[in-house]
Amino acid sequence: MTAPNSTSTSSTSYDTALQRSQKIWEKIEKDPSGLRMLTGDRPTGALHIGHWFGSLRNRVRLQDAGVETWLIVADYQVITDRDVIGDIQGSVRELLTDYLAAGIDPERSTIFTHSAVPALNQLLLPFLSLVTQPELERNPTVKAELQAAGKSAMGGLMLTYPVHQAADILFCHGNLVPVGKDQLPHIEQTRVIARRFNERYAGGVEFFPEPDALLSEAPTILGLDGEHKMSKSRGNTVMLKMDEAETLKKIKKAKTDADRQITFDPEGRPEVSNLLTIASQATGRTPEDIAEEVGDRGAGTLKIFTAEALNAHLAPLRARRAELEKDPGYLMQVLRAGNERANAEADATLQKVREFMGMVY
Amino acid sequence: MTAPNSTSTSSTSYDTALQRSQKIWEKIEKDPSGLRMLTGDRPTGALHIGHWFGSLRNRVRLQDAGVETWLIVADYQVITDRDVIGDIQGSVRELLTDYLAAGIDPERSTIFTHSAVPALNQLLLPFLSLVTQPELERNPTVKAELQAAGKSAMGGLMLTYPVHQAADILFCHGNLVPVGKDQLPHIEQTRVIARRFNERYAGGVEFFPEPDALLSEAPTILGLDGEHKMSKSRGNTVMLKMDEAETLKKIKKAKTDADRQITFDPEGRPEVSNLLTIASQATGRTPEDIAEEVGDRGAGTLKIFTAEALNAHLAPLRARRAELEKDPGYLMQVLRAGNERANAEADATLQKVREFMGMVY
Repeated sequence: MTAPNSTSTSSTSYDTALQRSQKIWEKIEKDPSGLRMLTGDRPTGALHIGHWFGSLRNRVRLQDAGVETWLIVADYQVITDRDVIGDIQGSVRELLTDYLAAGIDPERSTIFTHSAVPALNQLLLPFLSLVTQPELERNPTVKAELQAAGKSAMGGLMLTYPVHQAADILFCHGNLVPVGKDQLPHIEQTRVIARRFNERYAGGVEFFPEPDALLSEAPTILGLDGEHKMSKSRGNTVMLKMDEAETLKKIKKAKTDADRQITFDPEGRPEVSNLLTIASQATGRTPEDIAEEVGDRGAGTLKIFTAEALNAHLAPLRARRAELEKDPGYLMQVLRAGNERANAEADATLQKVREFMGMVY
Repeated sequence: MTAPNSTSTSSTSYDTALQRSQKIWEKIEKDPSGLRMLTGDRPTGALHIGHWFGSLRNRVRLQDAGVETWLIVADYQVITDRDVIGDIQGSVRELLTDYLAAGIDPERSTIFTHSAVPALNQLLLPFLSLVTQPELERNPTVKAELQAAGKSAMGGLMLTYPVHQAADILFCHGNLVPVGKDQLPHIEQTRVIARRFNERYAGGVEFFPEPDALLSEAPTILGLDGEHKMSKSRGNTVMLKMDEAETLKKIKKAKTDADRQITFDPEGRPEVSNLLTIASQATGRTPEDIAEEVGDRGAGTLKIFTAEALNAHLAPLRARRAELEKDPGYLMQVLRAGNERANAEADATLQKVREFMGMVY
């Protein structure tokens, strides 16, 4: 899942997770059966190319490889770090449109919202009994998010959301969660909860799987300021929904440097290198190769190259998006069907959980 | 609601709550319409006379006075301070039997379990967004319970259970909660959540009431050791379900002192005074009056007086209890009907909450 802000995890656990991920990628290529992916986003509006290259494209790839796919629109997570919900319906609609345009297939994948699945949310109760306050407080990603939100006091929902996320993953017996490095502490929290539930309440039965984090080699796309992560609030993004002219205009405004010789040097020349990364992602060519092609024709040429590559790359997605936008009824139908499927799954899981805990009357 | 362990609250807020309670008692006598009481217990087994004289009798009185009554069997709260659930079904059955034997009328009152009402539990999510971690940590009753549980680390469920309790109270728009002094911080937390929800998410609409605590003059019954609170784990109780001979035997074993002249002196003679309190509660006479009647005939006579008074007082309850025990099917039918009513109420409340928050798709 995509976190609003990133943080670090220890490099050893990162290396272990990376090795494990490589093995899982091999398994996916050979035989994806038995793999069930849970992933999703906070609905804060339409997605940008950072989402696409960083996670969404990867999800579509996994879906198409035959991994069973569950996509959560984590609407309650919108209020973990802000007091105002905003136009959540509009944000959900935008997100849905981007998902489907990107190639998420509602026939094969289940898209659902947090708030529509009470039995999933109920799992928060038994799960909270399996973690301690110090464990909740130790989570480095939550700490970083608190800081990024600029709040003085940790909110109750922010403190506990990794437990809620465990419910998201475990209610559908998800065993695979594509994540960035910053989400590894959450996956570890979910693994602990699954393990403790199985031990404490299920008498040692492996009812909940301990899900694996799936790290990918997707690059981090910086914003067009070349400084911060791409994020809508900074206005440094190219949105998937933009048209070709807007895309070109946005990229023309990207920050670069005065050196006309284009080189790929992420440390020394982050702005130019970020454009090369975008162009590389859009074309499948290496950034170095593109840098060589642009040569000494300067940032202006690089920008046009990048915008054109991106527009060509996104053209099919954008064509589907335009079609989807014409039919909001269909989008809501997709969501309702997903919520129905998620409810059936959550009801069955909760029923078993209640049986394990003896809470059947 | 009855907390597992007691603690203190500031005396000013206690005085305010007491004054407010007196006004509510007046209102109840004049016109109880519009009052909706939420109360309940953690299902940890059958109830004892401390529960009866301390809270249950009062609830029946409120029900019979015409206050709409909702009784929660808080099964998830069993795991706030312990790792083992135990025979929760048996505990729930015992509690139900005691409720009905005591005079809770399932036609007028709704008895339900936490775990069977997902939409109630889902309210925990938006409510958690309305409190901060420091607020959760400050709750003196939770702190005291942690200490009493002998745990080194606060569990996630224990930390957040006052928020869950707010969901218990607010899902049915409860505006009256009969409590002991130790529960006042929880009611205050619920009031804060109701207020913040109305402000932040309901645009100022008074959707959730700010419930009142209803303090009563019920005495604290000590255990038969005269030292600790009556509690099953200490074996210092008279259970409602005991028969007359068992009751007599238990009371005969109660700790007393060597002074044959019986006097009511809770400070100086807690054990003897506790027996007088029990006898007073059972007869409606004052403890001093009973002390005078026993005179210098010693603790043995007081014990027999107390046991006989208690047995006479509890006879109708115990007769109903014996009948109820013969029909466990009926008990489960009552619970299922209650759960159904609670679910209908919770679904309607959650639907409104989702509408207020814009989470309707």
